[in-house]
Amino acid sequence: MSDSAEYTPPKVWTYTQPSGGSFANINRPIAGPTHEKVLPVGQHPLQLYSLGTPNGVKVTIMLEELLALGHTGAEYDAWLIRIGEGDQFGSGFVDVNPNSKIPALVDRSGAKPVRVFESGSILVYLAEKFNAFLPKDIPARTETLNWLFWQMGSAPYLGGGFGHFYAYAPTKNEYAINRFAMEVKRQLDVLDRRLAESEYLAGSEFTIADIATFPWYGGLAKGWQYGAAEFLSVQDYKNVQRWAETIWARPTVKRGRMVNRTSGDPSEQLRERHDASDFETKTQDKLTESNL
Amino acid sequence: MSDSAEYTPPKVWTYTQPSGGSFANINRPIAGPTHEKVLPVGQHPLQLYSLGTPNGVKVTIMLEELLALGHTGAEYDAWLIRIGEGDQFGSGFVDVNPNSKIPALVDRSGAKPVRVFESGSILVYLAEKFNAFLPKDIPARTETLNWLFWQMGSAPYLGGGFGHFYAYAPTKNEYAINRFAMEVKRQLDVLDRRLAESEYLAGSEFTIADIATFPWYGGLAKGWQYGAAEFLSVQDYKNVQRWAETIWARPTVKRGRMVNRTSGDPSEQLRERHDASDFETKTQDKLTESNL
Repeated sequence: MSDSAEYTPPKVWTYTQPSGGSFANINRPIAGPTHEKVLPVGQHPLQLYSLGTPNGVKVTIMLEELLALGHTGAEYDAWLIRIGEGDQFGSGFVDVNPNSKIPALVDRSGAKPVRVFESGSILVYLAEKFNAFLPKDIPARTETLNWLFWQMGSAPYLGGGFGHFYAYAPTKNEYAINRFAMEVKRQLDVLDRRLAESEYLAGSEFTIADIATFPWYGGLAKGWQYGAAEFLSVQDYKNVQRWAETIWARPTVKRGRMVNRTSGDPSEQLRERHDASDFETKTQDKLTESNL
Repeated sequence: MSDSAEYTPPKVWTYTQPSGGSFANINRPIAGPTHEKVLPVGQHPLQLYSLGTPNGVKVTIMLEELLALGHTGAEYDAWLIRIGEGDQFGSGFVDVNPNSKIPALVDRSGAKPVRVFESGSILVYLAEKFNAFLPKDIPARTETLNWLFWQMGSAPYLGGGFGHFYAYAPTKNEYAINRFAMEVKRQLDVLDRRLAESEYLAGSEFTIADIATFPWYGGLAKGWQYGAAEFLSVQDYKNVQRWAETIWARPTVKRGRMVNRTSGDPSEQLRERHDASDFETKTQDKLTESNL
């Protein structure tokens, strides 16, 4: 790493256009809106502005779970925020999430709209609003929040660390890949040991801790992310594999993963979701396609 | 970056001893305990196992704030976990936090001890237990949790990203430093814009969102971290500076920052804390020292 060793940072960092890599065009050293843009508002109390990334999928799984339990107040419009095109920097979106990241939710069911941002905050908000997937009993509630916060503080090492340097950075940096691969394997082992002693992360109940963790670490275990399944030997984490399969068997999870999805099999992409029947239309499409 | 460009990751990642840098000896690709070690237990209901890092300080500030409000149930023993010496891999610690990170808390006030890990989870737990620093009103509570989760998901880019590559990695990697400096400056700007419109992060009230964010971003603004104040032009974030000074003026915050601290001015280090009078002894020490 001779060239790296020779680099001396300047006294004061200044912005220069990024040298490349995926998403380089949407990373900026400043916050705030870049353009005026009013967000669309649909007919339901809950308006979700999102994209089918792991963080986005947490919320759509949660909403589909709530609807499956019969909570009609969880009906929602899911609008597509195309982060590659800078939709997250529109003024309306920034008003809902000043951090310009998906997912962002507005609850319009009360006297005044309530903004909710950060996927972990959205999960807690919905769990408390509908009294579901977050146990009331203090030890079980605490264990759920322990693992929910664990996921929120750990996934940046998976996404912004490992994923970036392994799959998206313009060059492969050995030190950075090793650093983050080691940490992600440690995280997988933390989960694997927990899931050896417990059916779900917080105990015997399926909770928002599982909903938050599945799209990142379950997805990694299923080989969905970064083409890194072999590299990280994800098959070795047997308890994570068992848990991921159990969760993936839930129809709500399959529906949640379709919403705001813009890649993969077109029959599994529901780019916007405004009604439960939107999934049926999609299923019809698929049946029609398979008859061709 | 010619050498990086030439690196091709292997098919399957395997562990090799890290090539250096601070903390290299405590990073591992597996979880779980390395040795048997029972944790000490003091006289108070709350047992904290921690270190005076930004994540540790969140909890000691919270506990000192609760005690200042008269919540005697928040009396605590703070035990030192020397992460450089692997205390976090002792079996007793792993039982409390299977993720082997500080801070970890055990509440022994009930019939059975409750384990609480992840600093964000500990803050929510204490806020709900004592009904303080987390508004009850839904919009204000939601805004508090929005910013609390923001902090939990953002700080890994500051600590595990920027701090690591700028201050701790064995060589200076230009791409990684630029990537994380840009993100940290964006985060500072997110805070600065929010604090231009609001006294505290969640509104007019001082909450757990401020308690979580101050040790990381307030500390950065005050030049405490990574020697990076000039590099990141932290003086430009005027609203963050104003907010950091307001919080730093709280005696509870100064006390919280002393607990489990092992670096800096010895008179500001209270390595273990078992009683409120421990601070007075420290003050006596300081007065004595200044008389020498």
